[in-house]
Amino acid sequence: MIKGRVIGKIWSSRRVDTMPSGALLEVETSGGGCLIAFDPLGCNTGEAVLITQGSVAAGYFSGKVAPVDALIIGSIDEDLQKKSKN
Amino acid sequence: MIKGRVIGKIWSSRRVDTMPSGALLEVETSGGGCLIAFDPLGCNTGEAVLITQGSVAAGYFSGKVAPVDALIIGSIDEDLQKKSKN
Amino acid sequence: MIKGRVIGKIWSSRRVDTMPSGALLEVETSGGGCLIAFDPLGCNTGEAVLITQGSVAAGYFSGKVAPVDALIIGSIDEDLQKKSKN
Amino acid sequence: MIKGRVIGKIWSSRRVDTMPSGALLEVETSGGGCLIAFDPLGCNTGEAVLITQGSVAAGYFSGKVAPVDALIIGSIDEDLQKKSKN
Amino acid sequence: MIKGRVIGKIWSSRRVDTMPSGALLEVETSGGGCLIAFDPLGCNTGEAVLITQGSVAAGYFSGKVAPVDALIIGSIDEDLQKKSKN
Repeated sequence: MIKGRVIGKIWSSRRVDTMPSGALLEVETSGGGCLIAFDPLGCNTGEAVLITQGSVAAGYFSGKVAPVDALIIGSIDEDLQKKSKN
Repeated sequence: MIKGRVIGKIWSSRRVDTMPSGALLEVETSGGGCLIAFDPLGCNTGEAVLITQGSVAAGYFSGKVAPVDALIIGSIDEDLQKKSKN
Repeated sequence: MIKGRVIGKIWSSRRVDTMPSGALLEVETSGGGCLIAFDPLGCNTGEAVLITQGSVAAGYFSGKVAPVDALIIGSIDEDLQKKSKN
Repeated sequence: MIKGRVIGKIWSSRRVDTMPSGALLEVETSGGGCLIAFDPLGCNTGEAVLITQGSVAAGYFSGKVAPVDALIIGSIDEDLQKKSKN
Repeated sequence: MIKGRVIGKIWSSRRVDTMPSGALLEVETSGGGCLIAFDPLGCNTGEAVLITQGSVAAGYFSGKVAPVDALIIGSIDEDLQKKSKN
């Protein structure tokens, strides 16, 4: 998985019909890149998140294969992480 | 998923017979790279698109495994995205 | 697989319910990048580890598809490795 | 998919027995990298090709899983592509 | 697939029990990176090899999913390759 930070939202009215309904968030990854991830958790801009990629992201959805290759799987507890590094 | 912008079209007359018929678009990705994606939506040059990669792209097609590892899954509503950033 | 070194731990209280319970470690990879891997072995900070990525990482878990795309599969015996290079 | 240009051929006499028989071509990718792809089309050195990667490449072969993660799926019609850019 | 050259061996006594027994070799890839690949062929340090990655590498093993995302599938005949370039 990789860490990232939500920087915005994507709207796509014209899309394939196998796309699950839900939010698509733009995330800046810890490596400096940028990707679009499906968000089942209702994350906000600025939030630190954990992202899984590839076919395991699609495996989160039931039924027909969802064309989703990036999924937010958790919101990172930043306070706890800072404490553990002190 | 990644964001990209359509910059052209690819023609390939001699190809494997499991390739689905449809448009293959050349897309410049937000990271500066370039890839070829199958387009089921009829996108135009200059259009901002959302792309999914890997085996989930092939999962869009029914029947025998399609040798497609990049699929345009949506056209990005650029007006809405700009508004949300203001 | 890639080699890496454990540099910390990630906490995520709010996460998808298909996430297996267990430790999520932050690992610096041999290429200089950073990823988050599920740890079934109880590794410590500073330990050299071997990581597998993608859907084979999720295949380690039984039952419903786990949204895990990076798994620590071994602790590297650094003493043996140094000897073999002398 | 990615575009590439065939730059040579690879010979491997000692290989795993699940490897399908056929040509393995060395391809320079549009990004400047280099990979080895299985060629079911009989492409020549210098030819521009379209390559699919990952498990969908292996899906081209029937029977036992082929250890092939890169497949040439088409020869690119360079004349047509140039015309469309004029 | 990618080309690489074997530069060493990895020992991992404490590892997940679904890991197949066999050699894990450290390989420098043609792109300058470094990865660890399972070796079913008995390759030596210095040998040029062909590597497949991702779930197709795990597909080589039968039974329960092997957590292997990189597999040496062939030893490259370097003499033949040099001749074809002359």
